[in-house]
Amino acid sequence: MAERFHLAATDLRTGVLASLDREESHHLLRVMRARPGHVLRVFGAGRDHEAVLVENRGGIAIVEVGREMPSVSPPSVELVFVVPWLKGGRTESVVKKLTELGVSKIIVYAARREVAHGDDAKLARLERVALEACKQCGRSDVPALKCAGDLATALAAGNVSPECSLLLYENETGCLLSSAVRRVFSSQERASDTSFCRALLVASGPEGGLRADEIEAIRDRATVVGLGPRTLRAETAPVAACAAILALCGDF
Amino acid sequence: MAERFHLAATDLRTGVLASLDREESHHLLRVMRARPGHVLRVFGAGRDHEAVLVENRGGIAIVEVGREMPSVSPPSVELVFVVPWLKGGRTESVVKKLTELGVSKIIVYAARREVAHGDDAKLARLERVALEACKQCGRSDVPALKCAGDLATALAAGNVSPECSLLLYENETGCLLSSAVRRVFSSQERASDTSFCRALLVASGPEGGLRADEIEAIRDRATVVGLGPRTLRAETAPVAACAAILALCGDF
Repeated sequence: MAERFHLAATDLRTGVLASLDREESHHLLRVMRARPGHVLRVFGAGRDHEAVLVENRGGIAIVEVGREMPSVSPPSVELVFVVPWLKGGRTESVVKKLTELGVSKIIVYAARREVAHGDDAKLARLERVALEACKQCGRSDVPALKCAGDLATALAAGNVSPECSLLLYENETGCLLSSAVRRVFSSQERASDTSFCRALLVASGPEGGLRADEIEAIRDRATVVGLGPRTLRAETAPVAACAAILALCGDF
Repeated sequence: MAERFHLAATDLRTGVLASLDREESHHLLRVMRARPGHVLRVFGAGRDHEAVLVENRGGIAIVEVGREMPSVSPPSVELVFVVPWLKGGRTESVVKKLTELGVSKIIVYAARREVAHGDDAKLARLERVALEACKQCGRSDVPALKCAGDLATALAAGNVSPECSLLLYENETGCLLSSAVRRVFSSQERASDTSFCRALLVASGPEGGLRADEIEAIRDRATVVGLGPRTLRAETAPVAACAAILALCGDF
């Protein structure tokens, strides 16, 4: 397969002349040393297209978008993840892996027990990480990335109904993730509501765990679930939960 | 909970005087500055015991093993993972996460397309990583770690029957991991063989993918399965597969 480059959704139409962004242009023109006529693939917004490099306009690659190509279909369930900022590049690792697994939206929040906080530069860096993961794993849509000031705000921004929202909590032993996920989908089948959005939101906490007041603030917005008796690290729990859900939904 | 320190299985009996190894002693005596009388927890071989620091003998901590304490039970299925050496500390990351998830044995092999190779120092480092992950996640047994020269040797060392062995392969689209796992367990239930070891082996490939001859060499030793249409990174695939299996078995 030709190497894939990201393009804004509005430019993804056959016959359109479009410019790659600065970083994508740099990779195509400087790293790959592509010349006009070079065939590549462009993607974004869930579609892949063939494209041809037309011109190097002062370091920006101008491409002509060609025919649509087959693209990888998203998971059967729309997955929204709410994760805390973590120290030492571990937020990037989580975003990279959740992107590979097919998550459609990631909201990063500042947890009370975690010193790591987000800013515009960090969010831009996460967007780049997600984009690179899309290229590598072959998906055609880039997950939406957002910042939130705290867990409750992040859940509200997730915009998934409370019945379909789960909070991973290491001290929860009564309700496992798998039982909660099976319950969500069986109740939807019973309701036979085909217009029901098959979306799941999963929120997780920081390395030191969530504070009681953080959990209390969202208690009526999500079901608290556990992932078994071993305490998973903050960077492992959301990735493991995502893979678990994909397996339970038959996507894995 | 008191901080946990690893002890060899033979020393894990109430009333025994035992010495921690050099690294564990350093952490207890130098980092934590514990004095005789300090109460700690020791673990290994699937059990946790209370213990008391008796003496600092030239930098080695001598502890008296006390009563047995409740310990975390292992997953309902014994999990054996076969993973390649990966560059840039990514083997360590995989071992850390598989340990957190409860895997009982990890065999690391040299893949043909991967320049990273193992040696005694790297294996010792992985053992330390696994031990630290055990402390953090609360498990009482340390996973066994082995090296193998190639994929076929690694599978043989795994010692799990071919019917219960799976090979993750990014180009496999016909058989998903979840269907294969369900098939393994339903065939075992039909056989009603209670003596049957509930073990699963999962093997995965390196960043560039497995070579055709590597797959051919183990074709009668494992079922080839896929993890959906997105290509997961070599460090993501085994962790995602492990979480998926735990969810399918009701451990998650």
